[in-house]
Amino acid sequence: MGELSELFVPRRVAVVGATEREGSVGRAIMENLIDDFDGDVVPVNPKYDEVFGVPAVAGVGESDADLAIIVVPPHIAVDAVREAGEAGIRNVVVITAGFGETGSEGASREQELTEVAEAYDLNLVGPNSLGVMSTPTGMNATFGPENATPGEMSFMSQSGAFITAVLDWANDQGIGFKDVVSLGNKAVLDEADFIDAWGDDDDTSVIIGYLEGISEGREFIDTAREVTQDTPIVLVKSGRTDAGAQAASSHTGTIAGSDQAYEAGLEQAGVIRAESVQELFDAARVLENQPLPDSDDVAVITNAGGPGVMTTDAVGDSRLSMASFTDETLDEFSEKLPEEGNIYNPVDIVGDADNERFRNALDVALADENVGSAIVLSCPTAVLDYDELAADTVELQEKHDKPVAACFMGGERVKPAAEVLTEAGIPNYFDPARAVGGLDALSRFRDISGREYDEPTAFDVDEERAREILSAVKGRDDTRLGVEAMDLLDAYGIETPQGDIVDSPEEALEVAEDVDGDVVMKIVSPDILHKSDIGGVKVGIPHEEVFDAYEDLITRARNYQPDANIIGVQVQEMVDLDSGVETIVGMNRDPQFGPLLMFGLGGIFVEVLEDTTFRVAPVAESEAREMTEEIDSAPLLRGARGRDPVDVDGVTETVQRLSQLVTDFPAILELDINPLVATPDGVKAVDVRLTVDPDQL
Amino acid sequence: MGELSELFVPRRVAVVGATEREGSVGRAIMENLIDDFDGDVVPVNPKYDEVFGVPAVAGVGESDADLAIIVVPPHIAVDAVREAGEAGIRNVVVITAGFGETGSEGASREQELTEVAEAYDLNLVGPNSLGVMSTPTGMNATFGPENATPGEMSFMSQSGAFITAVLDWANDQGIGFKDVVSLGNKAVLDEADFIDAWGDDDDTSVIIGYLEGISEGREFIDTAREVTQDTPIVLVKSGRTDAGAQAASSHTGTIAGSDQAYEAGLEQAGVIRAESVQELFDAARVLENQPLPDSDDVAVITNAGGPGVMTTDAVGDSRLSMASFTDETLDEFSEKLPEEGNIYNPVDIVGDADNERFRNALDVALADENVGSAIVLSCPTAVLDYDELAADTVELQEKHDKPVAACFMGGERVKPAAEVLTEAGIPNYFDPARAVGGLDALSRFRDISGREYDEPTAFDVDEERAREILSAVKGRDDTRLGVEAMDLLDAYGIETPQGDIVDSPEEALEVAEDVDGDVVMKIVSPDILHKSDIGGVKVGIPHEEVFDAYEDLITRARNYQPDANIIGVQVQEMVDLDSGVETIVGMNRDPQFGPLLMFGLGGIFVEVLEDTTFRVAPVAESEAREMTEEIDSAPLLRGARGRDPVDVDGVTETVQRLSQLVTDFPAILELDINPLVATPDGVKAVDVRLTVDPDQL
Repeated sequence: MGELSELFVPRRVAVVGATEREGSVGRAIMENLIDDFDGDVVPVNPKYDEVFGVPAVAGVGESDADLAIIVVPPHIAVDAVREAGEAGIRNVVVITAGFGETGSEGASREQELTEVAEAYDLNLVGPNSLGVMSTPTGMNATFGPENATPGEMSFMSQSGAFITAVLDWANDQGIGFKDVVSLGNKAVLDEADFIDAWGDDDDTSVIIGYLEGISEGREFIDTAREVTQDTPIVLVKSGRTDAGAQAASSHTGTIAGSDQAYEAGLEQAGVIRAESVQELFDAARVLENQPLPDSDDVAVITNAGGPGVMTTDAVGDSRLSMASFTDETLDEFSEKLPEEGNIYNPVDIVGDADNERFRNALDVALADENVGSAIVLSCPTAVLDYDELAADTVELQEKHDKPVAACFMGGERVKPAAEVLTEAGIPNYFDPARAVGGLDALSRFRDISGREYDEPTAFDVDEERAREILSAVKGRDDTRLGVEAMDLLDAYGIETPQGDIVDSPEEALEVAEDVDGDVVMKIVSPDILHKSDIGGVKVGIPHEEVFDAYEDLITRARNYQPDANIIGVQVQEMVDLDSGVETIVGMNRDPQFGPLLMFGLGGIFVEVLEDTTFRVAPVAESEAREMTEEIDSAPLLRGARGRDPVDVDGVTETVQRLSQLVTDFPAILELDINPLVATPDGVKAVDVRLTVDPDQL
Repeated sequence: MGELSELFVPRRVAVVGATEREGSVGRAIMENLIDDFDGDVVPVNPKYDEVFGVPAVAGVGESDADLAIIVVPPHIAVDAVREAGEAGIRNVVVITAGFGETGSEGASREQELTEVAEAYDLNLVGPNSLGVMSTPTGMNATFGPENATPGEMSFMSQSGAFITAVLDWANDQGIGFKDVVSLGNKAVLDEADFIDAWGDDDDTSVIIGYLEGISEGREFIDTAREVTQDTPIVLVKSGRTDAGAQAASSHTGTIAGSDQAYEAGLEQAGVIRAESVQELFDAARVLENQPLPDSDDVAVITNAGGPGVMTTDAVGDSRLSMASFTDETLDEFSEKLPEEGNIYNPVDIVGDADNERFRNALDVALADENVGSAIVLSCPTAVLDYDELAADTVELQEKHDKPVAACFMGGERVKPAAEVLTEAGIPNYFDPARAVGGLDALSRFRDISGREYDEPTAFDVDEERAREILSAVKGRDDTRLGVEAMDLLDAYGIETPQGDIVDSPEEALEVAEDVDGDVVMKIVSPDILHKSDIGGVKVGIPHEEVFDAYEDLITRARNYQPDANIIGVQVQEMVDLDSGVETIVGMNRDPQFGPLLMFGLGGIFVEVLEDTTFRVAPVAESEAREMTEEIDSAPLLRGARGRDPVDVDGVTETVQRLSQLVTDFPAILELDINPLVATPDGVKAVDVRLTVDPDQL
């Protein structure tokens, strides 16, 4: 662990605001620390000589501590932090509330706190935090009622109350933790910092968390990508739904990013996103304890056919599949299993199976090279000893070093067996679907940890020309650009139809004559948004009509709005929509993740079916390609229904070039290429709209 | 309860095959019955004078019982059943295995068993059953190790092992049962029979089940519809996925229906389908105990913001929504809650909330007319007594008679409170998503129990003409029909384009002249499936070219296959696809549910996006309309993107008329109207294909 990790292994902890007053936070923290902490505790309080018999000091400067816990009231908390910084204490946890979460006075206090922390380069947790814990040293520097059991999960939460609830529950479930941190308002340290620290911590084997927001999306992605090469991260990010996002925003007071951005960002970061508390811990428990499977093929061994079918359904719902056994395995099963059983997967060893038959069947299945993992599924019978089955399951899991999930169905009679299994890191569930869920998480993490993240391609582009085009908005009220900015795409190597914007009928004809066949002509004016409505778009104009069409377009525009700013008329090659597929490539900026790319098929696919996909830019080639693959309507790009496939490479490259453009120019707030027409021969961006922030140019 | 219900309240139970032999089924059942049954038990076994001290008789005929449990070996089991029938015993449970589940000998034995049961009009459970239980009389006529705790759920299962597992678990969870039945092979009594019986049973408040198949789909739908007007039914029907369906079929040896049919049939039946064991019991527990909500608006009262957000997400995922409080409620909250809390939903009463604040807030929320149900969500704190909170929750739930779900988060410290809640029928969960799931089930059942099932409309149709057209396949090898059967649609009042099939160029011209505008001409031959490939379709033919086009089509057909059976040439009005939407209305027959109707939009929507919906025929008008509403692409029918809405009434009526056609003629095995073109002015069936079973005509 790096420097931040010192926060979790202090030699001496100062509690600034320590007291014995009943019901106070200062008392609760003192008690928690005195109870179990291996190091020293120093109460800091000018009012007392000692607290719980421990000699007190008047100020944190005299504490000689390497971690200060601040519980004094908000108006003196910042001073206490400054004093700690001056005294060379680098790690500070601000428990005190009354900062950013409470209106403008609190917000400016939080700003001051951040500045002090930066001045002294402090590792500062909070404010408005429940505190921190670390089980190796027994440090419980929180005011919660529960201490954590030692384990290998490290846990961060944006809700302190959730920590107290989880700890009470986890102690009951045999779930242990390495470090626990209540993030509070994240004035200084945020989720990415702890992910980074725990990624380097040999004693943390899984990172879990409850988050309501992510402070710096791109930093989060980059950090998590590195960490998840070895250490799984499972998070609940709440505010998934519209209602939830509204509740989250009113709870934390921060502007929530869109869930589309979170969904894309967490996926790109290699984070496993859990949708519920149950999913969070079901995944984390197996990731803490079990090896990763070599394949997604699961063997199900059961003494009951019905639950075997239910389990097969759950496998069918997951990313896993039912293993097909080798001939050797089938031969062994044929020999050893009763005729009324089933030697194919799910393997039904029948209700009269004793422990030996169960053990043999599991042993044979796990030895099969076609089997990546196994589920031991059993209903209580008179001939089966659950405790023995648990011991055998643990032994065979270790022998074959493949993940095993248990579904010993039952209540009272399962409990001792379930404890043996839990102890060995094999969680037992009554519901087969949850056992499958655990194996599914292992399979996902195997893929995540094996990812190779390519660098985004750096295309050779004309950045200067792009900047010039964007600068058109400078000094204007309306900062939107339309087709007059088509050259912007050209500057970034995105193909556009042949043509140009002209301001005389003669020029119009000149441009048209360079184009094969008829042309499309459009009035270009920032003041005329709905061109078609005023007859401002003419399609299929032969060369001989171009001159008159120009005059007509200008007349219509003038009639519509005499003082309109008319940039000219766009004369463009006709793009053959019949042989192609209309797609949309767009971008908007998310408050947390920055540039969010969108891809989908045009028309009804985006507007009615909402068949879209998102990625945080910049994207590498593989990510851009995934976008073209994962929409439901993707088969239409690849030649569904007897049509020729379109140039998917061209689409992929356009997404990447747009990614580069919006990364190079934070001034581009929104951009849509609609449509980007993809044909078998290539792609062409037919229309573009964007909004630019001139102040960022 | 009707006659079948006597099965569960026998006066005297005969155990045919009773014995004291260790490990035998006959012993297990005797022990279970002797232990708890209020009535008499009669061992039947010629080998013994008494079994466990109870005087035995040699044959079931001498038992004077009203329920016989058969455990003798398969080769004498049928005789024992016959003897019981002769002796006037009407209720028989065949535990014995070795029937339909074991190959052809067993199947014919099962056939014989069914015949005996029919001859004596027996209520016969099994064979291959674990047995039956009924808690009011303490009757446990199973060989399982557990007896059920009394309660109001009645439970049927196609897996006996699953019953043993559930009972062990349920006893631990405080879940009780009224009747339990292991359905076995369902030779006589099946799920519909028990649903019917329990629907009439005042002591059964919820029916739950695990099924791998449904014997008679239509009977099941009709029975369940009636029962679910009062009594909820929650089922796991396994074999949902392809893998699961395969496993189910190999487990039960029956031909599985398609899951599309089950999904549609269960929905039409008013059954709540659970996807997992957890969902099954989460739903059943609240349905057993809680009132139905008047509205779907949920109030969440919490002492912790974070979990409040998670709960809001779960509400967002469900069919429920977050309640908007009345002004009076908001005023009361403003007055009573601390400023740092949140008076809007989720109501955050803050971490320092004591029991009084919690109780007041819940009382106010439940009194609000905008609130249909509430969730009490709490994290452990020093100032909150969970036991008291549980008592208050129970009291307020009863006072307001609105459903309440509990999510007291924690482990050890929650247990006594959770017991109080469970006792009162308010299940407590650590995961808010599960608490929401329970309320969701209540809301669904409120809608189901309020359903009014319309009769299918009986349209005035020409059944005789339809029969004549279908009879064309008689004596033919190929029993498929194509456009030559367009008149079939016409006979059932489904609009088709103007036109006819002709067998001379003169006639072709005559037909064309009756049509406004150009025509479409197609070769009609059962031997030429892919007409377009051989140039057998001509589009946009003006009247003056009709004569030549006829000759050309015939020539092409002859060249392609000299001996083809050419029925003629179809001359048809051009249907303007540009102004309409292509839809598909189809039907195939499911082995369990019979005629299954399909609806979707044509082309990519069905073929690429698989955007389809299904119903078991016959359908009422409301069901046909739902089909046009619930596909993803439904907005395209209703005028998306500035187009005029098409004639949805016409589509709805076409679905109903097809429903009537396939219900009237079981001989129609498959039928597709593709496309049915829907325009703003009406609908027209442009093409049809069907397969007919001549033996059913």
